[in-house]
Amino acid sequence: MTELVLPQHTNAYGTCFGGTILSWIDIAAGICARRHAGAQAVTVAFDDVHFITPIRLGDIVNIAARICHAGRTSMEIRVEVWRERHDAQREHANTAYVVFVAVDAGGRPLPVPGVVLDNDQDRARFDDAVERRQLRMAKARRTAPR
Amino acid sequence: MTELVLPQHTNAYGTCFGGTILSWIDIAAGICARRHAGAQAVTVAFDDVHFITPIRLGDIVNIAARICHAGRTSMEIRVEVWRERHDAQREHANTAYVVFVAVDAGGRPLPVPGVVLDNDQDRARFDDAVERRQLRMAKARRTAPR
Amino acid sequence: MTELVLPQHTNAYGTCFGGTILSWIDIAAGICARRHAGAQAVTVAFDDVHFITPIRLGDIVNIAARICHAGRTSMEIRVEVWRERHDAQREHANTAYVVFVAVDAGGRPLPVPGVVLDNDQDRARFDDAVERRQLRMAKARRTAPR
Amino acid sequence: MTELVLPQHTNAYGTCFGGTILSWIDIAAGICARRHAGAQAVTVAFDDVHFITPIRLGDIVNIAARICHAGRTSMEIRVEVWRERHDAQREHANTAYVVFVAVDAGGRPLPVPGVVLDNDQDRARFDDAVERRQLRMAKARRTAPR
Amino acid sequence: MTELVLPQHTNAYGTCFGGTILSWIDIAAGICARRHAGAQAVTVAFDDVHFITPIRLGDIVNIAARICHAGRTSMEIRVEVWRERHDAQREHANTAYVVFVAVDAGGRPLPVPGVVLDNDQDRARFDDAVERRQLRMAKARRTAPR
Amino acid sequence: MTELVLPQHTNAYGTCFGGTILSWIDIAAGICARRHAGAQAVTVAFDDVHFITPIRLGDIVNIAARICHAGRTSMEIRVEVWRERHDAQREHANTAYVVFVAVDAGGRPLPVPGVVLDNDQDRARFDDAVERRQLRMAKARRTAPR
Repeated sequence: MTELVLPQHTNAYGTCFGGTILSWIDIAAGICARRHAGAQAVTVAFDDVHFITPIRLGDIVNIAARICHAGRTSMEIRVEVWRERHDAQREHANTAYVVFVAVDAGGRPLPVPGVVLDNDQDRARFDDAVERRQLRMAKARRTAPR
Repeated sequence: MTELVLPQHTNAYGTCFGGTILSWIDIAAGICARRHAGAQAVTVAFDDVHFITPIRLGDIVNIAARICHAGRTSMEIRVEVWRERHDAQREHANTAYVVFVAVDAGGRPLPVPGVVLDNDQDRARFDDAVERRQLRMAKARRTAPR
Repeated sequence: MTELVLPQHTNAYGTCFGGTILSWIDIAAGICARRHAGAQAVTVAFDDVHFITPIRLGDIVNIAARICHAGRTSMEIRVEVWRERHDAQREHANTAYVVFVAVDAGGRPLPVPGVVLDNDQDRARFDDAVERRQLRMAKARRTAPR
Repeated sequence: MTELVLPQHTNAYGTCFGGTILSWIDIAAGICARRHAGAQAVTVAFDDVHFITPIRLGDIVNIAARICHAGRTSMEIRVEVWRERHDAQREHANTAYVVFVAVDAGGRPLPVPGVVLDNDQDRARFDDAVERRQLRMAKARRTAPR
Repeated sequence: MTELVLPQHTNAYGTCFGGTILSWIDIAAGICARRHAGAQAVTVAFDDVHFITPIRLGDIVNIAARICHAGRTSMEIRVEVWRERHDAQREHANTAYVVFVAVDAGGRPLPVPGVVLDNDQDRARFDDAVERRQLRMAKARRTAPR
Repeated sequence: MTELVLPQHTNAYGTCFGGTILSWIDIAAGICARRHAGAQAVTVAFDDVHFITPIRLGDIVNIAARICHAGRTSMEIRVEVWRERHDAQREHANTAYVVFVAVDAGGRPLPVPGVVLDNDQDRARFDDAVERRQLRMAKARRTAPR
């Protein structure tokens, strides 16, 4: 996914508004999840977004999404955001992990295929995802309103 | 912050698009951070968003942000999102933690005031924030592109 | 209701576009009317908006709505708009009166509860609203196209 | 000015959102004021909007603006909004009166030309505008926050 | 159709974004086609847009659409876009030809009335349209993906 | 470039609004031109868009842009738009040719590198582009307002 930063995407300081980047990440991850599941998918968690480098008005933004892990009905997608400046230099701007659940037309969870692990890098990514998943579940127990 | 879900905020399934909710969370948290810092603030991390209940077209959305923790230049803001249906019933829809850094006009980090802890609940929130901060730092070391 | 003025909300002169402010007023007033009526409400008149102070890019905007008067099916809502600058100073930017009618799913008017008048200020507000209502009705007779 | 009602302009009930119509009225009136003044113009008051007929998704909207009255630096513009349905039937949907002040690049008020009154209808419109102006001034004294 | 160029319509260089102008042309042409057909119309081709003069933030944009040619179910609309600067000077900014087909509620093509040719200019426009149509058909045979 | 069709992108008939697709084409082509030129590029002509298959709410849209021809300062970009349905079937939806000119910061045309022709397909594409260019120039002489 590639986007161009227009004034409608910026904040008062001339950089790309955080909410715009998060929307693009959600769309890119959602497309990746839908393709993996072969079904509609809804966002259930969105975490670990680190804004490393500000993205500026006029930058081209490249967004790459790939699946790290699939549970029974959930999928974890890793999204990397890169900015491409006028001089064609690319810089890493963000990384995010987004969790989706596949659902049928009535909104009920659907099983999804497993992830094929082709090499050591895939396996390392999968193991990291398992660890993040455990943390996420531990934290979910602490997020009730108080 | 209160919003009304219009068709421009929805996805193809008639519920509020994830990216829209994340934008509202970012704005609510950013306003809270700017007031605490007395200065402009930029988003540096966005994590632990759990989408608990879908928000629908026509719902009123209430978004409450409060500061949990302040470091030297960074602030962690907890955001709670509630949906209010036509029959006035309220349901908890999301919780998110967003980290901001206060910056001056040139984008350099600025020191921020500490958080005043008035009671045990404030102190519990502060301690949880410290724990999340350590996890966040540990994870930041693992998010370089690969 | 709190909003942050982004470039997408501004006009060519760097201030918040009038239409954006009117949209926010309509949403804030509509939420207030819907809560009072316990039913869906549609805008029937919008008057007495005075733009006192321009709102600028980067300002935080606070919008407070409260009901002044309820007739059989109509409600008059007073909306006050305040700007909050970077230095946390607040200035009164606009006041507006918006009239809504409660409707059922088929668009037919529904009766609404009366307004509870707790003190002299509430009663003064109610009396002013009655006066505005009479002016509005007198003027409505003159607004046929010519 | 002619607009087409797309889903991004609607509310949850399938009709054109009030805020969208008010934005279109503000733009149409602002263009009319700018042409009369030969200078930039800012909205100072917006009143007497009566929503007579709902505008629906897919309707064509016609918006006609004309100047009624010009004071030393202010102008009152009358705006009529018509909906055009699929079967080409036209219905009067709204009328609004919007007041603008001409300003120079520094935001200071600028004198504007007088309105030429060609016939009795123009004169009747002018007299009505004078009356509205007096009401507006009387009301402006009552709109301080309380 | 008249529009005012706001920051949300611009690109990173302060001029009106090409996509915004194309959207306005599509709406203006679609309204013209719908009125001629007395039925809903969908865009089938969009060609010969020449961006002659850049349109800038704060410009008023005038868009005039008229029908050149009607086939059995298709219509060719010529759209002219003019910019109006702050000093009221007007400049020709674009011309475009857009082809629509009238359709019924199920999306099936509907016959449309012929174009009335009142004078030599109308006839010249019609003849040019016939020529463009032949080119368009010839080119359509070459646009399969390769 | 990949996009997801949300309600804000649709028209009153539930398909993707033509203006939205044209905006996406303009962005994809502009990014391609900017990368080829190594400089900022502005749209000068937009032609031969054929809407072959309607794109629907919820579809994923794939947009691929590649350069066909480069003159001294101008570039012709071919854009193909594909829709991807829920069942992962892909259909060709549009093809467009867009012409850009590279410009410096002051808006003056800049020379661009030639196109490298690697094989017969590239050469066929280049020859077709030359032909379209001649037609475009011939037509440009006929588009003065009349």
